[in-house]
Amino acid sequence: MSAPARIDVVPAPPLLDSARLAGRLAVVVDVLRATTVEAMALAAGAAGILPVAEVEEARRLAAERPGSLLAGEREGLRLPGFDLGNSPTEFTAERVRGRTVIQCSTNGTGLLAAAAPAARVIAAAFVNLSAAVACAAAAESVTVLCAGKLGRPCLEDLALAGGLVERLAGPDTRLGEGARLARSVWIGEGRDPAAVLRNAGHGRYLASIGFAGDLEAAARVDAVTIVPELRDGLLVAG
Amino acid sequence: MSAPARIDVVPAPPLLDSARLAGRLAVVVDVLRATTVEAMALAAGAAGILPVAEVEEARRLAAERPGSLLAGEREGLRLPGFDLGNSPTEFTAERVRGRTVIQCSTNGTGLLAAAAPAARVIAAAFVNLSAAVACAAAAESVTVLCAGKLGRPCLEDLALAGGLVERLAGPDTRLGEGARLARSVWIGEGRDPAAVLRNAGHGRYLASIGFAGDLEAAARVDAVTIVPELRDGLLVAG
Repeated sequence: MSAPARIDVVPAPPLLDSARLAGRLAVVVDVLRATTVEAMALAAGAAGILPVAEVEEARRLAAERPGSLLAGEREGLRLPGFDLGNSPTEFTAERVRGRTVIQCSTNGTGLLAAAAPAARVIAAAFVNLSAAVACAAAAESVTVLCAGKLGRPCLEDLALAGGLVERLAGPDTRLGEGARLARSVWIGEGRDPAAVLRNAGHGRYLASIGFAGDLEAAARVDAVTIVPELRDGLLVAG
Repeated sequence: MSAPARIDVVPAPPLLDSARLAGRLAVVVDVLRATTVEAMALAAGAAGILPVAEVEEARRLAAERPGSLLAGEREGLRLPGFDLGNSPTEFTAERVRGRTVIQCSTNGTGLLAAAAPAARVIAAAFVNLSAAVACAAAAESVTVLCAGKLGRPCLEDLALAGGLVERLAGPDTRLGEGARLARSVWIGEGRDPAAVLRNAGHGRYLASIGFAGDLEAAARVDAVTIVPELRDGLLVAG
């Protein structure tokens, strides 16, 4: 497998300089739960995922697209009147096959918009780690953008970023400081996704409101082989 | 030893919400090299350290204070006409005993200014790790502020922050997400300050311009027992 010449990791969106993404492959990471859901939904046969920041815009877009599904959460819980929340296990073939999912998520949508200057934008999670690595290995320069929480770095996104760095880096790959940091987080967490999600503040919160099953689902390394890729504002199976 | 009820770590200055420092103990960290130098200089008997951001202001303050010493660097190198650069080994008793050091550093000074809303502000490095832990253990709430590099997190500051977290946290201490992250970095780096400084981007830069000795000096855990503390804009031995 080839290796990128350069890998950078941006621990949280406020630390991103979007202009530096030009010509690069951007890997967007929001393990709990946007990018996990995106990989699972496309693997289950969804036609595409349309990320939207605002609830009212999501409702309007859904009304314009008969057959589409509205998905989204606030404070971890499904939005009123929406078809789906934000649990990876909800996105089964029965629910989503052939349909466009309108994914309402403030955090994830802003991140995709910030990543737009990149040459290509893909989404990674533990559930599609090896597929994302295979896709990114062919790029000259890779930037991993972590969603974080409320503008700050979070454990699960940096740990996954570190796993990507460890798998992607060859002997001649130059690593930015964020990539070195992320790799140390991944090693410090024992390279154990389940432990990462248990230790993470948002993981604890989700478990406390009844979503422990989402943590199990999000920790299943290589559950799917799909890499979501952004094309004209829509995430599709790359 | 008592333990704080709450520990947070801010990985880089742009991620700091200064208002959240009210009533807390702030621990400022800039391992390469500001806080290392501050601990070494005070341990060598300097009367105090006056942090200043701008070169011209530093020169003016030095002219107003006969007997004071001008210290500072740009791009790692001593500023023209300054008495001292930014190498911990320069701050010997012969040079600094009884004298006020005017420390010109854009990064470190901005960090101290940002920390000002805290109830107390101390400076930590590997060279005074145990002393800083002993000082912070008595506080109810601790925020570790990492200087980082160019507004982004850096390995050496987060690793030291993680060492502080590991040593400070008791069984009932609540850790913020940054504190969990920092602890993982520290563990992922094998709890080895010399390895941290070798792996860090700025450590590599300093070694490349002839300051490998500074990395050795900065990695000497508990070389001194001084904790610099900010009082009326001056860092003094706490």
